[in-house]
Amino acid sequence: MNPVDYYTEKFYIDYSRVYPNRKIKYPELANILQITAANHADFCGLGFDDLQHNKQAWVMNRIRIEIDTLPELNDEVTIDTWLELLRVPKSIRNLEIKKEGKKLVGVSSLWAVFNTERRRPEALKIDADHLKIFTDLHATSLENNKIETPESFQKVAEYQVKLSDLDVVNHVNNIQYLTWCLDTLSKEEVLERSIAVLEMNFLKELSYQKIIHIEQYRQEHELYLRIRDEQFIYFVARITYQ
Amino acid sequence: MNPVDYYTEKFYIDYSRVYPNRKIKYPELANILQITAANHADFCGLGFDDLQHNKQAWVMNRIRIEIDTLPELNDEVTIDTWLELLRVPKSIRNLEIKKEGKKLVGVSSLWAVFNTERRRPEALKIDADHLKIFTDLHATSLENNKIETPESFQKVAEYQVKLSDLDVVNHVNNIQYLTWCLDTLSKEEVLERSIAVLEMNFLKELSYQKIIHIEQYRQEHELYLRIRDEQFIYFVARITYQ
Repeated sequence: MNPVDYYTEKFYIDYSRVYPNRKIKYPELANILQITAANHADFCGLGFDDLQHNKQAWVMNRIRIEIDTLPELNDEVTIDTWLELLRVPKSIRNLEIKKEGKKLVGVSSLWAVFNTERRRPEALKIDADHLKIFTDLHATSLENNKIETPESFQKVAEYQVKLSDLDVVNHVNNIQYLTWCLDTLSKEEVLERSIAVLEMNFLKELSYQKIIHIEQYRQEHELYLRIRDEQFIYFVARITYQ
Repeated sequence: MNPVDYYTEKFYIDYSRVYPNRKIKYPELANILQITAANHADFCGLGFDDLQHNKQAWVMNRIRIEIDTLPELNDEVTIDTWLELLRVPKSIRNLEIKKEGKKLVGVSSLWAVFNTERRRPEALKIDADHLKIFTDLHATSLENNKIETPESFQKVAEYQVKLSDLDVVNHVNNIQYLTWCLDTLSKEEVLERSIAVLEMNFLKELSYQKIIHIEQYRQEHELYLRIRDEQFIYFVARITYQ
């Protein structure tokens, strides 16, 4: 298929991307998915620098990651990606991680165009009509979705945003939300329990030195994680264990 | 030159590796250098999995990074690496980052072989006689060195090691030491002052949940950073500004 429409990227899982159990760190899994999305956008003329001419950038709103097998140290994986929807100001992007042709991970993600000066969503100012949309080609059993949260969360940690959390958009990089949340769990829980589905909703951006707290709510096979302050909820995640 | 002896790796500086000023994050700079070192070792039959047959791994003791120009967002760089010394149990490895043939960064690093069960240095158990050593080919104006520290450090932060800090060797990944230290500086200092030389000494490994504190000592063009607890010093860095 035409790489402008259906794009493939290769990744080698080096030692810096894995936990002590040799499996990819979940935030690194999110990272290689997002790098693939960014590189596909670049390749289509809709990348960070293209959008910056109009003070715009893509930001991720939601992601649903269905994990069959986690990539491991020294694996060579491919990530395929394509658009399922591109309708102002939203875009649904699917991704599949494969190893030797076998699907390991399927992803549905929702993106919006964001004005980096006004810090709010707006319509894409570049024409994207040349892109093929694969309306019926899904990578997951369910689409990315708004996570409905229970009421009874428990505060487990407090955190202040550091320079190392920021990326080129001058806000906290997506993968840091997940990093902070997973760091509130025990090492055993992260390394030994298998995650079947990881869903994340990015509700609001976070900037340098902001103080937030992290909350958990636990059910038998589900763990909800939330980042908030007194005023806003910034991030919600739901982990469904196998 | 033979890639077994003189090895080259390409890196694309994607958005996840840069600060808001579009320049590579210093810990990511250290990361791509270490990934290159690890991949060269793999390629020579002296990689992580090769050494693990004997419960061994390479660990970095010292690094001296001389920065002429920092790689930036969307740069394609090459990293060349070669051995200057390989004498039990130590190895000196040099690296050069180039963009379009122009040298941006030169590096001298010192490594030791480490027993991952006994957690201490020992002689390499794999024969490495096939490797060519470039005794006279330097990448830096001065060799990596022991950092002599002043006495009057000031404590600036406390930190507890988190799961996300660990790598496959089940200890804190090298780049995290630098991340924690730089996070104690102001955003302006990190993004606006140009570092000419970054030297790091890794003195002792750190494990999960350990509590350490971070110290600074400042001179006009030099900044010393140190990680310690009541008993040990784990890490010392010296930043020389331009």
